[in-house]
Parts: sequence; C-alpha cells; structure tokens
Amino acid sequence: MQTLEQIIAQIKPLNQDAMRKAQIKLDGLLKPTGSLGRLEQLAVQLAGIFGEDAVNVEQKKIIVMAADHGVFEEGVAVSPRAVTAIQAQNMVHGVTGVCVLAKHAGADVMIVDAGIDCDPIPGAVDMRMGRGCGNIAQTAAMSREQAETLLVKSATLAMQQAENGVRLLGVGELGIANTTPAAAIVSVMTDSDPECVVGIGANFPSDQLQHKVSVVRRAIDCNQPNADDGIDVLAKVGGFDLAGMTGLMLGAAAAGLPVVLDGFLSYASALVACQIAPQVHDYLIPSHFSAEKGARIALAQLKLEPYLQLEMRLGEGSGAAVAMHIVDAACAAYNEIGSLADSNIVLPV
Amino acid sequence: MQTLEQIIAQIKPLNQDAMRKAQIKLDGLLKPTGSLGRLEQLAVQLAGIFGEDAVNVEQKKIIVMAADHGVFEEGVAVSPRAVTAIQAQNMVHGVTGVCVLAKHAGADVMIVDAGIDCDPIPGAVDMRMGRGCGNIAQTAAMSREQAETLLVKSATLAMQQAENGVRLLGVGELGIANTTPAAAIVSVMTDSDPECVVGIGANFPSDQLQHKVSVVRRAIDCNQPNADDGIDVLAKVGGFDLAGMTGLMLGAAAAGLPVVLDGFLSYASALVACQIAPQVHDYLIPSHFSAEKGARIALAQLKLEPYLQLEMRLGEGSGAAVAMHIVDAACAAYNEIGSLADSNIVLPV
Repeated sequence: MQTLEQIIAQIKPLNQDAMRKAQIKLDGLLKPTGSLGRLEQLAVQLAGIFGEDAVNVEQKKIIVMAADHGVFEEGVAVSPRAVTAIQAQNMVHGVTGVCVLAKHAGADVMIVDAGIDCDPIPGAVDMRMGRGCGNIAQTAAMSREQAETLLVKSATLAMQQAENGVRLLGVGELGIANTTPAAAIVSVMTDSDPECVVGIGANFPSDQLQHKVSVVRRAIDCNQPNADDGIDVLAKVGGFDLAGMTGLMLGAAAAGLPVVLDGFLSYASALVACQIAPQVHDYLIPSHFSAEKGARIALAQLKLEPYLQLEMRLGEGSGAAVAMHIVDAACAAYNEIGSLADSNIVLPV
Repeated sequence: MQTLEQIIAQIKPLNQDAMRKAQIKLDGLLKPTGSLGRLEQLAVQLAGIFGEDAVNVEQKKIIVMAADHGVFEEGVAVSPRAVTAIQAQNMVHGVTGVCVLAKHAGADVMIVDAGIDCDPIPGAVDMRMGRGCGNIAQTAAMSREQAETLLVKSATLAMQQAENGVRLLGVGELGIANTTPAAAIVSVMTDSDPECVVGIGANFPSDQLQHKVSVVRRAIDCNQPNADDGIDVLAKVGGFDLAGMTGLMLGAAAAGLPVVLDGFLSYASALVACQIAPQVHDYLIPSHFSAEKGARIALAQLKLEPYLQLEMRLGEGSGAAVAMHIVDAACAAYNEIGSLADSNIVLPV
C-alpha cells in the first residue's frame, strides 16, 4: 500500500489543452453558444480529467462510509445508535434511499464499515477502526495514526475502483450523530462560529439545538484542532466515516476519477481533503444543496455551487445519486448533439 | 373537438386524500421523516394527480411548439430567421439538444409546427397558423380566434397523449426572436417594467438590450393587452409557439397529466395558462432556473421554485428533459425504499 504522501503526489492538474478543445467542440454544437450553461462546464471539467475524446461516465459507483460516533452519548441525535448498524444492513439489502436512487441512476453501491458499533456485517467492506470513534466532546475522535491509516485505506479503495473501470465515484455516509462532528469540522475549517453551522441533522428538535451547539463548542475547545492540518482536524473532531470520505476524495483525485459530493457531511470531508491537497478541488462535482444549516458556509469556502435544490438531508449518498443523472446528461449533450457545420448554420460570434 | 370552456371544465383539483395517504407512506419509509425534501413533495403531487397507488411516470413525452415571429423584423435576434426551420428539421432528425437530453431521460420528442416560415416539414405535426405571426411591435401577433383555435388544438393534442398512455408531459419551444414576446407576456402578466424582464435570449448583445426593451415597450403600448384576459395577451403580444405551450398545459391538466416546464418561454406560457385556469398550477412541475433575466419575476408570480440550477438558456424543452430524471427519482424513492416497520425501527415523531 502506498503512503498518503505518495497518493497525494499522483494528483494531476486538469488537462487545460483538453478543456480548451472540449469548449471548442461545444461551441460548434447545434445551439446558441454557451446556452447549455453549467452542463457545458461539467463536460469541460470531465474533458480536463479524461481528455476531450473520453467524456463519458458509463460505470458509476457510490461508496458509503459507515461508522458510529462516541459523541452520541451527549444526546445529539434522536435516532437510537443501533440504527447505524440496522441501516448498514438495509443498505447491503438494497432498500435504503441511496440504493434505490443509485439503481435508478445506473450506479452500484458499496458499503464500507469504517467502525460501526456491531459485529462485522456480511456484504459490507471491512475497514473497521473500532466500534465507534471517541466522544469528541471529551477527547479526540481517533489518534492521528488511525486517521492516516483510514485515509490511506479509503484512498486505496477509490483507486481500486478506477482500476476496475469506474468512471464516476459518488460518496456517501451513514452514522447516527455524525452531523455533530461534521459541524465541528466545518466550524474549524471555515473559522465560523458553531452557532452558524449546527443544524437539525436527522430531525434533532430545533428547541434543543443550543445543546448541540454547545457540544460542538466543547469538542473544539477541548481538542484544539489545527485548521491548517486537515488530518489533525479529522482525528480530533471528525469520525471514521468523515475521514473515510476524505480518503475517497484523495484517492479518486489521485486516480483521475471525478467525485460527486453528497450533502453536508461530504462538504465537511471535502473541506479537509482540499486542505490536505488543494488540487483535489478540480475533481469534485457538487450535487445538491443540503438543507443543513451550515451548508452555505461550507460551499462558499469550497467554491462549489450545487446543481440541485431539493432540500434533501438524508445523506447516504442519496444526493450524489440524483446528481449522477446530470453528469450523464452533460456527457450525452457533449457527445450526441449535432454540429452547426453539418446544418450550414453560421452564428455570429 | 371540444371547446376551450369544455376542456377547462375538466380540470380537477388534486386528490387531497391520496396526497395525505402518500405522505403517510413516505413517513413510514426507511429514512428520517421529511429527509428527501422536495422529492417527497413531488411524489405527493403525483399522488394527488394519479392516486397514491399509481405514482409513476413511465411513459414520457416532450412536445416542442415551433413557430416564427413577425417581431424578428425589429432586429431582436442574432440568429437568422431561417434557423427556426433548420432546427425544426434537425429536431425531426433527433440531433438537437432536447432530442439528446430527452433520449437520455427516456422521453419521446414530438415537434409541432405551429407556424414556421417554411414549407411543411415532414415528421412535424402540422398545426400551422401561418408563416410566422404578426410583428407585435406594430400589430397583434394573431387574432383572438386564432389564439383560441391554437389553444384548443394544442390542448387536444395533450389530451390525446394522456389517452395514449403518456404519464409525464414536458413542454418546449423553438422560434427565433421568441424571447421578445415572452418578455412582453411576462411584463404584462406580472405588471413589471420590461427593463426588469428583457434578457439576452440566444446571445443578443448586451449593449443592444435597450433596443429589445424598447421593442417590448412598443408591443405593449400599441396592443394594450389586458392582463386579466390571458387569451387577449397571447393574441396581442404572444406568438404561435407560446399559445401552443399554453394550450398544452391546459389540455394536460384537463387530462390529469403532470406537465414539466422548461425555461423562460414556458414560464410566460404558464403565467397565461394559470390566468385562464388557475387550477392548472397544481399540475405544473418546474424544472430548471432559466438564465434569462426575467426568470425570477415570472417564477415568483407562478409560486414555483425550479429544482435545477444549470444556467441553461437553450429552450427546446432541454431543461424539462433533464428534470424528468428528478421526477423519476421521486417515483423510485416513493415506490422502492423499504419501510421502517420492516426494519423494526421506531423513530420519535
């Protein structure tokens, strides 16, 4: 297995020449110049990743990182902790939201157990770092060594997908209480007050939101994460699922694989990934605008504007699944629309 | 053929009981209550149209209303007028934007010639009202009788689609210079100054936009359309394509068929449809947020919030095609996600 430094060193800048050629091709299609808007930008981004003659994403996969969280003890979630394990099993059986939406988008779903508080789940990839991470309100989520191990393992998993022919990777997560560490990460990485970032997650009562804010404050106060060191942030106030998603992004970028984000949790992981390796940014494809409170703050710093306004807040990669249709549409437009030249139409520049 | 009044009289309010049952079903699925956001609202809307046991849109069709516009003479478009006919032919051959995106969404495309300035086009449905409509800067686009005839014919076409098994109708248009009448309609129907509504359409030069604004002002001044009489507005400052789209919406609602809007032109037609028959509103499904200037004003009055932020401004029904994936996703989520009861998960209300 490679080291994290070796993986990061493989991330290439996008191919500017291919992107220029792709834009020229788009400008010659049977439509007013630029009229497909962000679908064109998406096709150009894919050209920068794959080359202008290979703008397609036939094989798609969504990897769901699942783990439990010690901070559950602080009373920051309404669902029982056991729901993480139950939903992971349901995911193996294909009946959760992401499974249904991924199937509809022609994507496979892989579920990774990064540390669920249960016995190993048949059908889930074993990347177990423990039975849930530490309670960040009192201690670190994990050691720095654990965070690095998880980053390398999950990055390697993403790179294996590319080797196996996957052309579009979606990320998702599952973990009761995980909007609390995600809010902590976003607060730290964007230097924002937790008050502005903490949201209701999976229906946490609004009138108890101040408690969740105070837990995030305590997590930051007692751990003192260093915003200039993404691994430190993941280890201190993150979680196994969040670290796993960050690793998927790093590995995907290293393997030249575009990554479709999901919602708030994925924004948190992406903020860390971009701190560790800023060039990851160009491989990221936003999907939906999460309904979670801190979404706008996180997206502003990521300089990403989601395509979908669906007020979704399910997680699991469900938003990534829906957005895969848009990536497919961008490819279809790029490859299949006729040319102005073939119709003898000359448009003023 | 029925009269317009007979068609409108058939529009039923949505089935509230089915919508309630659909929401109960959604609340029992394997996810936090409400976490699929607007996908859930969309499924509930479809339940109100089809009944809670028939939330599906397998057979999909996009109808593109094509026509030329007399106001082209005023120099409000950069493309040659002949492009309407050329693109209509390209559409028959399946190589334009909407054709590619519709195919990718599993939708058929039907092209209707409502008055293109050319000989009849083989493969296009003949609903020709003339070779382009009147120049609205100087006279009415058409007579009131013509507008009524077109509304009935296009409504009947939509109703025939429902009879033939279509479950989701998308609307599109094609007509060089047609953002000028659309801007006039939106200005009139929303009581807005043309300055706030007129946009660049298909790459009209920004530095000549004041000319386009002045043409819209002249159209409104010389025709004096009555905002309380949608047919009057269509006849005076509309066009055959815009009237045709309005008719499609009326007919679809009458036949219990949900209609996916496209961009700015479809917003203009929808404003008129909802003036003629306000109950049409509940059958409308927004798609993308058009990049045209007056989009926000039109959508605010329609009380519709598009799902997609793609900065598209191609027209043709291209945005409707992309949004059909979202409608499909809502159906898949509604029908296929497992239930909490089957997993023995009890969530607090």
